[in-house]
Amino acid sequence: MKELKDRIRKDGKVLNADILKVDSFLNHQIDVELLDHIGMEFKKRFENEKITKVLTIEASGIAIACMTARHFNVPVVFAKKARSGNIGSSVYTSVVHSFTYDRNYDITLSRQYLSSDDKVLIVDDFMANGQAMLGMIDICRQAGAEVGGIGIVIEKGFQDGGDMIRRQGYHVESLAIVDAMDPETGIQFRE
Amino acid sequence: MKELKDRIRKDGKVLNADILKVDSFLNHQIDVELLDHIGMEFKKRFENEKITKVLTIEASGIAIACMTARHFNVPVVFAKKARSGNIGSSVYTSVVHSFTYDRNYDITLSRQYLSSDDKVLIVDDFMANGQAMLGMIDICRQAGAEVGGIGIVIEKGFQDGGDMIRRQGYHVESLAIVDAMDPETGIQFRE
Repeated sequence: MKELKDRIRKDGKVLNADILKVDSFLNHQIDVELLDHIGMEFKKRFENEKITKVLTIEASGIAIACMTARHFNVPVVFAKKARSGNIGSSVYTSVVHSFTYDRNYDITLSRQYLSSDDKVLIVDDFMANGQAMLGMIDICRQAGAEVGGIGIVIEKGFQDGGDMIRRQGYHVESLAIVDAMDPETGIQFRE
Repeated sequence: MKELKDRIRKDGKVLNADILKVDSFLNHQIDVELLDHIGMEFKKRFENEKITKVLTIEASGIAIACMTARHFNVPVVFAKKARSGNIGSSVYTSVVHSFTYDRNYDITLSRQYLSSDDKVLIVDDFMANGQAMLGMIDICRQAGAEVGGIGIVIEKGFQDGGDMIRRQGYHVESLAIVDAMDPETGIQFRE
């Protein structure tokens, strides 16, 4: 998606070969017009799937999910990162390993909001090693829901999450795939 | 806002005199069409303010902020609930007391995304004792930004947050104010 890649080149900050900061438009300050275009692009790429719900994980995924679900006319559901006192005991739960913080955390989703009647589009801002995505796929499996597609805004193509999940047979669409990056020479996108 | 009150009556769950669960449409599963109407309503109620940014706090505020900012054509910024490793040291920070969990937590916002040039609409899903709102107002004060208005989806009118913040002179618009609730007799909205 050209508009997105141009924006990443213009406003993204490459801190080192691993960390790309896009918090001026994607995950701290949010350019809702850009996100609306991202949602339209996901609609185009998954328009043959009869999506019934858009699933994401808090917090930054929520913005993308809302601006995507609008174009499918379906609800958003978001997994929470820790069991919350008010959520009730009837939840799907999966364990996710964070390499960034070197710890495990639980993600939970109330059983009421995902079932075997659902065909799910999972969206997130980043995919690197794919651990959070595996957790969301696991929650869909527990619910008996079908994964109709996976939409990623920025995939770190130099980490193995995207390839691992494609090998499992899922339809993954990443709007920008970064193959390499460097504070000096900038970002190399996959064609 | 009649559509919202009708929806709360239909799908909200009153667990006791304090806890109203609206996670089937507002803060776990999200009805994006309803949120779009909520965003339009905030636009109508604050249309005379020259809003430059919509500020909220993660996680459930993000959905409301995005669907509101769309109608103002301005960016969203969201405060984070704990200092994150990647956010950088240059942040505004404020301490919020959670009565629900009886503990304090920090909220942070990168200094880059709020300044004295900004006129801010602060939005959130709930206001009860108003502690999170005081934290966001404090962050605006640190930034030298003007608070152009405060938009709340559901105010618990039987707690003192809304009145306390109105007494400080802020323009607060709550789309539904719950004056009392009870699992047997239901919800009493303020006229």
